[in-house]
Amino acid sequence: MSLRLLFSAPRSDWEDYREVLPAALAEAGIDAVLEHALDPADPAGIDYIVYAPSSRLTDFTPFAGAKAVLCLWAGVEKIVGNATLTQPLVRMVEPGLREGMVEWVAGHVLRHHLGTDRHVRRRAPHWDVAVPPLARDRTVAILGLGELGAACATALAALGFRVLGWARSPKALAGVETCSGADGFAAVLARAEILVLLLPLTAETSNVFDARAFAALRPGAALLNPGRGGLIDDAALLAALETGQVGHATLDVFREEPLPAEHPFWGHPGVTVTPHVASATRPPSASRAVAENIRRGEAGLPFIGRVDRVAGY
Amino acid sequence: MSLRLLFSAPRSDWEDYREVLPAALAEAGIDAVLEHALDPADPAGIDYIVYAPSSRLTDFTPFAGAKAVLCLWAGVEKIVGNATLTQPLVRMVEPGLREGMVEWVAGHVLRHHLGTDRHVRRRAPHWDVAVPPLARDRTVAILGLGELGAACATALAALGFRVLGWARSPKALAGVETCSGADGFAAVLARAEILVLLLPLTAETSNVFDARAFAALRPGAALLNPGRGGLIDDAALLAALETGQVGHATLDVFREEPLPAEHPFWGHPGVTVTPHVASATRPPSASRAVAENIRRGEAGLPFIGRVDRVAGY
Repeated sequence: MSLRLLFSAPRSDWEDYREVLPAALAEAGIDAVLEHALDPADPAGIDYIVYAPSSRLTDFTPFAGAKAVLCLWAGVEKIVGNATLTQPLVRMVEPGLREGMVEWVAGHVLRHHLGTDRHVRRRAPHWDVAVPPLARDRTVAILGLGELGAACATALAALGFRVLGWARSPKALAGVETCSGADGFAAVLARAEILVLLLPLTAETSNVFDARAFAALRPGAALLNPGRGGLIDDAALLAALETGQVGHATLDVFREEPLPAEHPFWGHPGVTVTPHVASATRPPSASRAVAENIRRGEAGLPFIGRVDRVAGY
Repeated sequence: MSLRLLFSAPRSDWEDYREVLPAALAEAGIDAVLEHALDPADPAGIDYIVYAPSSRLTDFTPFAGAKAVLCLWAGVEKIVGNATLTQPLVRMVEPGLREGMVEWVAGHVLRHHLGTDRHVRRRAPHWDVAVPPLARDRTVAILGLGELGAACATALAALGFRVLGWARSPKALAGVETCSGADGFAAVLARAEILVLLLPLTAETSNVFDARAFAALRPGAALLNPGRGGLIDDAALLAALETGQVGHATLDVFREEPLPAEHPFWGHPGVTVTPHVASATRPPSASRAVAENIRRGEAGLPFIGRVDRVAGY
């Protein structure tokens, strides 16, 4: 008999998943019927709830037979305290977050390295041969060597770049010259031609890129921020772009999102705005993660990403 | 006693090499004086000639003591038949050609994959969240699996792309799905979202991308040509861009270079022109190759890239 799955999420999510989720289930050999009504018939007969915390469903009491609530989001802070949710709660663990970040970082580092923008923007004929240096002669710094930063540093080293990695505490990473602490931070700023910010946002790192940090950069350095908007003092960045101390900034994250229409980053010739797309849960890989957890549930194996209600994640 | 090196090349080359060549020599522990006059004093005392085939020096008779003519170019067809050149002739062999190609291809594949152009070109505020698929859900084809094609295919596979490789005769490559022959060619055209042309230009491959090939593509595919201009029928490409059969073309090589100002590729919204920069000898890595060959010459070891005068390369 087919499993009954309830997809409980806003309509726009359904559009993203309606094709890829059934495909992932079929690929995993799972015989399931996917429902997406707000009030399904026979709720007690639902086997799994695939759930976005932005869903209108907040009372899980009727789903007495559900074997798990499989969250589409990595963050479960909105739902972890819901007293009606007594079923196993599973957060999204999927390689898409890391892979997407590596692809965004590699793509934008190569874009700055190759000087691609002038070719993309060119309108008039102009055969301006200017061969960029090789990656081996280009120094890129990754600030923050957590899961995402380490993956990006490794990918850039594999592409041949001279990669400097900085973390608060000492870390070793193959193919990457790592350093730490305040002295290491100053050295990285002075040497890097392209900097990638992947630090966590804490009291210590808030506004870490302020006027003093920008003044310590190698003049003309390119800044990439796919980390957190709060790492950068926006006014100090605009001033550093004005003097040329920062050559270009490519920003994916902002203090306020969507970035307000009146913000000076929009339309600034020295700034490229990407709308928080560097790292997002991707429906195809997220669907594979959901299918794998249903397979595990049916096989009596532990779920990947099972939430510890006491720890809260 | 210092070695005497004559740098014989147009002035623009001297500008490119005047800093990096001495640095490479010093790094290799070579004590040398670098001269760059057209008519040096005591020509018989010159130990090595670092040479661009575009140099005005064509009579090598006075350089009776030169231990080698070290060419800055990979192609030596202009010089190989010079009867006054009796010294060992060495062509440029350096990793910069391969590395530069991998960087250009990875950069432009990621650019198409991420849809970067719309962010780079944006003027007005517009928070258009559209998350691209992951590389693992993106199919890229490399046509031609010679030294450059194989290196690009391997680098793209390492970045996570689904890579299809086509070559005239069957080839195996780790992480790459390879095929060959006419059937394989048709299958690759039908499946790839991004195609990279790295085929050699032969009677067989001239205009291989003609109207029929464009019609066989997956609609909207992106085409990258860092190979040879003659692989593409320009008129057929323009027609395929018109219908949307080709979504975008990024071209580095052309039938006539520089690309004539009146060519419709210039300013075409569906075409990005890069001015034959994908793969070029880079002064820093070329300088290291020159230094290594001087070190080998002084140590009595064979030169890397010694030209066979009978074969002509």
